[in-house]
Amino acid sequence: MTAPLSVAIAGLGTVGAGVLSVLRANAELIAARAGRPIIVTAVSARDRGRDRGVPLDGLRWYDDPVAMAREAEADVVVELIGGSDGPARALVEAALAAGRPVVTANKALLALRGAELARQAEEAGAALAYEAAVAGGIPAIKALREGLAANRISRVTGILNGTCNYILTCMREQKREFGDVLAEAQKLGYAEADPSFDIDGVDAAHKLAILAALAFGRPVEFGAVHVEGIRNITATDIALAEELGYRIKLLGIAEAGEGGVAARVHPCMVPVSHPIAVVDGVYNAVVAEGDFVGRVVLEGRGAGAGPTASAVVADLIDIARGRHTPVWGAAAASLSSVPSRPMESHQGAYYLRLMVLDRPGVIADVTGVLRDHGISLESMIQRGRSAVGAVPVVLTTHDCGEAAMRDALGRIAALEAVLEPPALIRIETL
Amino acid sequence: MTAPLSVAIAGLGTVGAGVLSVLRANAELIAARAGRPIIVTAVSARDRGRDRGVPLDGLRWYDDPVAMAREAEADVVVELIGGSDGPARALVEAALAAGRPVVTANKALLALRGAELARQAEEAGAALAYEAAVAGGIPAIKALREGLAANRISRVTGILNGTCNYILTCMREQKREFGDVLAEAQKLGYAEADPSFDIDGVDAAHKLAILAALAFGRPVEFGAVHVEGIRNITATDIALAEELGYRIKLLGIAEAGEGGVAARVHPCMVPVSHPIAVVDGVYNAVVAEGDFVGRVVLEGRGAGAGPTASAVVADLIDIARGRHTPVWGAAAASLSSVPSRPMESHQGAYYLRLMVLDRPGVIADVTGVLRDHGISLESMIQRGRSAVGAVPVVLTTHDCGEAAMRDALGRIAALEAVLEPPALIRIETL
Repeated sequence: MTAPLSVAIAGLGTVGAGVLSVLRANAELIAARAGRPIIVTAVSARDRGRDRGVPLDGLRWYDDPVAMAREAEADVVVELIGGSDGPARALVEAALAAGRPVVTANKALLALRGAELARQAEEAGAALAYEAAVAGGIPAIKALREGLAANRISRVTGILNGTCNYILTCMREQKREFGDVLAEAQKLGYAEADPSFDIDGVDAAHKLAILAALAFGRPVEFGAVHVEGIRNITATDIALAEELGYRIKLLGIAEAGEGGVAARVHPCMVPVSHPIAVVDGVYNAVVAEGDFVGRVVLEGRGAGAGPTASAVVADLIDIARGRHTPVWGAAAASLSSVPSRPMESHQGAYYLRLMVLDRPGVIADVTGVLRDHGISLESMIQRGRSAVGAVPVVLTTHDCGEAAMRDALGRIAALEAVLEPPALIRIETL
Repeated sequence: MTAPLSVAIAGLGTVGAGVLSVLRANAELIAARAGRPIIVTAVSARDRGRDRGVPLDGLRWYDDPVAMAREAEADVVVELIGGSDGPARALVEAALAAGRPVVTANKALLALRGAELARQAEEAGAALAYEAAVAGGIPAIKALREGLAANRISRVTGILNGTCNYILTCMREQKREFGDVLAEAQKLGYAEADPSFDIDGVDAAHKLAILAALAFGRPVEFGAVHVEGIRNITATDIALAEELGYRIKLLGIAEAGEGGVAARVHPCMVPVSHPIAVVDGVYNAVVAEGDFVGRVVLEGRGAGAGPTASAVVADLIDIARGRHTPVWGAAAASLSSVPSRPMESHQGAYYLRLMVLDRPGVIADVTGVLRDHGISLESMIQRGRSAVGAVPVVLTTHDCGEAAMRDALGRIAALEAVLEPPALIRIETL
């Protein structure tokens, strides 16, 4: 057995403590699989006094993570601080500049700074590994970058945010409204005090940007991802989706087509028969479609100390074994320059729910607007009668253009008999 | 870009032709991901004249695959002949003896000869890669051996034979009997003319033996796998399973417990809510449970030219990149010596269906036998009345011992009022 791999960890929150626990609990087994022991020699965190549930004696403590990345005599630096700038970015740059491999769980950093960091890692000849950045414990990065590397990928789809999936699952199973479930999720620790990063789709978009770069072999481009969250999903829409044979999921979808690669995160109606429709609660899933392999589905826990630490340590084992893969699957010079396609050019089917006054002529007005925009209907549900209040009208369309649909939606929302902003959810047959 | 990786392929059946197609169709993309072009330089197959749908010009042809493995100036030898002995084994041994890395799709070879071959590969310092041997295009070997390497695996479960899963799916969806669906599957090419290898569970057992060795870090031991096939599954049992909230699947299950590792392949009743229950048709699935990662599910096509070739080429890309992993995940000297646990020591719940004469006292006799063996009932379904013929009686048990159940079953089968051999299916809550 060769010399141990020594590791310096920056950030001792839940995941950092988790990494220490995994390395301790499975030390022997990890040494066998890595071909050498993996030992933590240095750590850096803000609060030296906090009890993290794992012993820290014998570890060299650094108050400054950047100094640690530069100076600690460690073979690898693990970045678990988070954020696309600040100390996380600074320490990763410092480690790579010193020729030290980096393992990180930081999706924001990879999504926003991944192109430059990859160039830096390549020049330094050092690994920049980030299995933990996407879909927690699911080895999705490894699967896309190595396992399916023989394939031209046509589409990658994911349930990439456990908080959103948990909220949508509770809303469906318990027939409750969004705000109510969110408040409970916050109490239970499944959602942050400021939940916007998760529920507005930003976290999922970071992860999708990473998956899209890998799937299509192009530099990561977070700015090109269209992002919508789940704040506007109602219990009514979830119930109507069931009735139509769909489940509502917040999906990240990246697909190659004429005109380039489109990447988008938004609530989708998915047929209940699709494997991704039944991935519930805090579970994540990644679906890749390749020209030879067909459809591959990966499912597992997308967050939490254990799953995330499992991914971080897998990266450490790769480094211990000397298994190396370029950051984006190929050298920077070999990446493709396929352009990004804007959301306006999206083509698809739509679910449209209106709350309208129950009086003659309303449906004619609405369907007239759709006709004028060249949008053809697939089905319509109108139910209930009400002399005073609003009744829901649900329309589903055949494939049509996003631009036309947005235009039509503006006109429909302005109709006097339409009482609330219409709900629009894209239907994905996948 | 460095020198190309040259490849010699032994066996040009569906998969061999598939590998040639993948390498041709995605040559540029594969070169970017592999860091160098991957080119086939030599081939060996029995019939030189057969049209395989791919051009073979420029390739050196060998009639003797063993000579090719020994002599061809190739960086890697790909074995796609099949079988645990004969030319497949001889050529793999010859290649490794020459220090040449080998890629194979041969599960029988790995399951039966994998321990010696791993030692040989280790001594030669050459890779022996076999992603294509288990679950076709699903990167299950990579996931278990690298992606989840930080975890102590407690159980690995799989739908590992597409033919069986296809037959069971058709039986359920079309309410047809086994023999009828098998005959159709043979016509459609989904089942072999001699289907016993698939439907008797042997193929799944080869794959499970491989997964068990990887999951538990021990030398592969095919002889320790308990094997039953699906010949005795009836449409009646499938319908009754549905009624009880289960699906019938042929599963391979390997689990670590007190007394060692148990590995078994047999039809199972799985709760419909479990992700593996909804994996239908020719799809395969592998579920791994790790101490930190929790449950990870992988699903995809388990057979066919495209998926299998995808896995073979992924192994070639690993070799081109110099990514190396010991055959069984750790060096031979680091493998564990945990013993195998025999099926007789299995504990679990059972579904028992009897066809009995509809007369007083029969149920009392049957339940009396179960009581005498310490087996307690969870539910009973008795339905229909018949003055002459047999009526089905279904019993499900709480957890009990396999040995006691087999004993009880023998006694029950011998009761005069029990008209057919009882059907016994294990219930897996997973």
